[in-house]
Amino acid sequence: MADYRKMWSDLEMDLEKHDLLCEALPEAFGAIYMSQENRPEGMEFFNFVVAEIHGVRPAELIEHQKKGGKVFGTFCVYVPDEIIFAAGGIATGLCGGSQFWVPGGEKVLPVNTCPLIKASVGARLDGTCPFFKIADMYIGETTCDGKKKAWEILGQEVPIHVMDVPQMKGEKDILAWEDEIRLLFKKIEDLTGNKISPEALAENIKLINEKRRALARLYNTRKNSPLPISGRDVLLVTQIAFYDDPARNATMVNKLCDELDERIARGEGVFPADAPRILITGTPMAIPNWKLHYIIETSGAAVVAEELCTGTRYFENLVDENGKTLDEQIKALAERYMKTNCACFTPNTGRIDDILQLVKDYKADGVIDCNLQFCGLYSTEAYLVQQALKEAGIPYLHLETDYSEQDMEQMRTRVQAFIELIGK
Amino acid sequence: MADYRKMWSDLEMDLEKHDLLCEALPEAFGAIYMSQENRPEGMEFFNFVVAEIHGVRPAELIEHQKKGGKVFGTFCVYVPDEIIFAAGGIATGLCGGSQFWVPGGEKVLPVNTCPLIKASVGARLDGTCPFFKIADMYIGETTCDGKKKAWEILGQEVPIHVMDVPQMKGEKDILAWEDEIRLLFKKIEDLTGNKISPEALAENIKLINEKRRALARLYNTRKNSPLPISGRDVLLVTQIAFYDDPARNATMVNKLCDELDERIARGEGVFPADAPRILITGTPMAIPNWKLHYIIETSGAAVVAEELCTGTRYFENLVDENGKTLDEQIKALAERYMKTNCACFTPNTGRIDDILQLVKDYKADGVIDCNLQFCGLYSTEAYLVQQALKEAGIPYLHLETDYSEQDMEQMRTRVQAFIELIGK
Repeated sequence: MADYRKMWSDLEMDLEKHDLLCEALPEAFGAIYMSQENRPEGMEFFNFVVAEIHGVRPAELIEHQKKGGKVFGTFCVYVPDEIIFAAGGIATGLCGGSQFWVPGGEKVLPVNTCPLIKASVGARLDGTCPFFKIADMYIGETTCDGKKKAWEILGQEVPIHVMDVPQMKGEKDILAWEDEIRLLFKKIEDLTGNKISPEALAENIKLINEKRRALARLYNTRKNSPLPISGRDVLLVTQIAFYDDPARNATMVNKLCDELDERIARGEGVFPADAPRILITGTPMAIPNWKLHYIIETSGAAVVAEELCTGTRYFENLVDENGKTLDEQIKALAERYMKTNCACFTPNTGRIDDILQLVKDYKADGVIDCNLQFCGLYSTEAYLVQQALKEAGIPYLHLETDYSEQDMEQMRTRVQAFIELIGK
Repeated sequence: MADYRKMWSDLEMDLEKHDLLCEALPEAFGAIYMSQENRPEGMEFFNFVVAEIHGVRPAELIEHQKKGGKVFGTFCVYVPDEIIFAAGGIATGLCGGSQFWVPGGEKVLPVNTCPLIKASVGARLDGTCPFFKIADMYIGETTCDGKKKAWEILGQEVPIHVMDVPQMKGEKDILAWEDEIRLLFKKIEDLTGNKISPEALAENIKLINEKRRALARLYNTRKNSPLPISGRDVLLVTQIAFYDDPARNATMVNKLCDELDERIARGEGVFPADAPRILITGTPMAIPNWKLHYIIETSGAAVVAEELCTGTRYFENLVDENGKTLDEQIKALAERYMKTNCACFTPNTGRIDDILQLVKDYKADGVIDCNLQFCGLYSTEAYLVQQALKEAGIPYLHLETDYSEQDMEQMRTRVQAFIELIGK
């Protein structure tokens, strides 16, 4: 990483501790990413973003603040970025994907909390994440018990607005979600000091849709065989989409897709055409959580799609762009976001339909359902997913893991056995 | 237990497995309860109920069904029994307090699920709980991730109606809860075939309030020193209130209170007057979970109150009895139930206020905050409870446990150290 020590120091980060992270990340990235053969050239931009992850984008956010703009840190695909950008704000993802931050979270949270939540809270409390330090406000949500309660503790440190995500998907729940979006709307207007016009919201609905279209286009290239891009590269692109400027992100993803289209036309791929094709489903994989993809793709198989928040759930379904009034637009936002099939809903049969459809669309040979430890929602729902896939005759493997490397070999053994089982 | 084998067999219970439970329970009860000295005579009724727990009340419920009545099994203090009884139905608690049922639940639920949920699901799947077998319908709720998702699995076995408990306590949440009560109302009317009149609802609001008043009266006797009754006896009475006929329950509790009033007048108690007084808070203790009370009360201290669902949360706050129309009554129900301070709400500062108030009212010398393992809600909220009590200068101990006996000695060591610390 280039020298951003002055900036980090100004942010009152813990420089010494943060240095340890800065030292470890390039090594992990090198082993997992740079070791790949025949990577698309378009990945260079994303390599650069990772290399400068706590530098370039944070510097842009600070620049934005210097001009009077506000920055909102978010944790979940349920937060409508459109509203934040329409108010002249910037929405950004926050840190939460590394074991490095877990001990910091365990100082205030129970050990039996999922590592994503512990890492998020730890990254803030330890002062080792610039995004957490920069954000003027966090937007939390009530999607799981762990996060819902963690925000109360985090809220003692920083201003946090919590969106109450419904637990069911009836008509009244969509209306309730509309109300929540209105509350956020007001909150964002208040903090930014900017009124959101229907024109600005329309423009930003299009902006975020463009980003979604680019990611959907990227995913579509993976329906081909041989695969023009590895699963871990697509995961990385998706992870970065949570942090990057949406317009630039769409441009860079589309540029990558142009290259992939050429590869497809040439029949060029990054794995043998007969490599078993794996669909991943389960809990989100925040940067730099690349563990499962790495294991799968160094065990002779390829990841063809992710039914994850850092996957299809992030970009599937567009917001209707025809709304002219704020009421129409907010309704369209509520409808789009409520289509996302998170395990926080009961029932959540739509997710099983999604998985079955993705298996078909991406010609997956098997499904690996992986949840982070202590994620009660996805680990319990796994029973129903397994049941449905068994009924459909689709090979299924359930894994539970955390951010440590201790279970790497055990996971690899199970993944390899699974790949052997589905081997064509 | 008397011979109910014919009844259990008709219920298609697993008799052999159930025999093991029937053998174990009296021994545990004897050790924990019958060993107490100078117990109030009024406890005899509750001893009898436990002795016949899978016999007498289940037989009454079956009798009710034979006359065309319906039985509703419930898991949570958020389900308004008033509506069930007003429709001529009977609400009853379900099994879920013993390690005996845990392995059955683990067949379909993640091991990292709280023992209360695993035991509930196991009791049903293993066929070792008559209440589960008798109920015509279960009323679930969305108070935690574990239960919310477990009902989807349980719902494959039995008809279950899930009430969506709000996650916040704003005005719109109380209205949303009113809507949920209306949905339940309709569901109960449909299943029972009985229309609920405002008169019947008024009568049953009074009925359940009477039960609450009786329990509140029982709790009030514990404000005295010496204590006229042990904490574990009051816990037992509260646990049984979830199963018993409400009118009989109120009568028997009041009868017990009459006796306790006499004891108070005589200055008679079950512990030395200087025994350290402990307030318990945390997750519910379903019958036969008497572990913590037993440890505390055989370590030289006394339990003076329980800020638990099997405690104050069950009976505090009455439903306004002045509603004349169904609309008024449902509104009153919604308002009363939304006053209960469950950790499923964010924020849940009301619970901390409650604990502080209870410490004062019951002259507690210290608070033991005990949650079942893998209960993310209460274990995370423990951080905030601890913070508030520290600030108020009230000794605090946090414990986490399950239904097994493996940690008994470790818990005892910690409890004894705590009692020593607060010893007067």
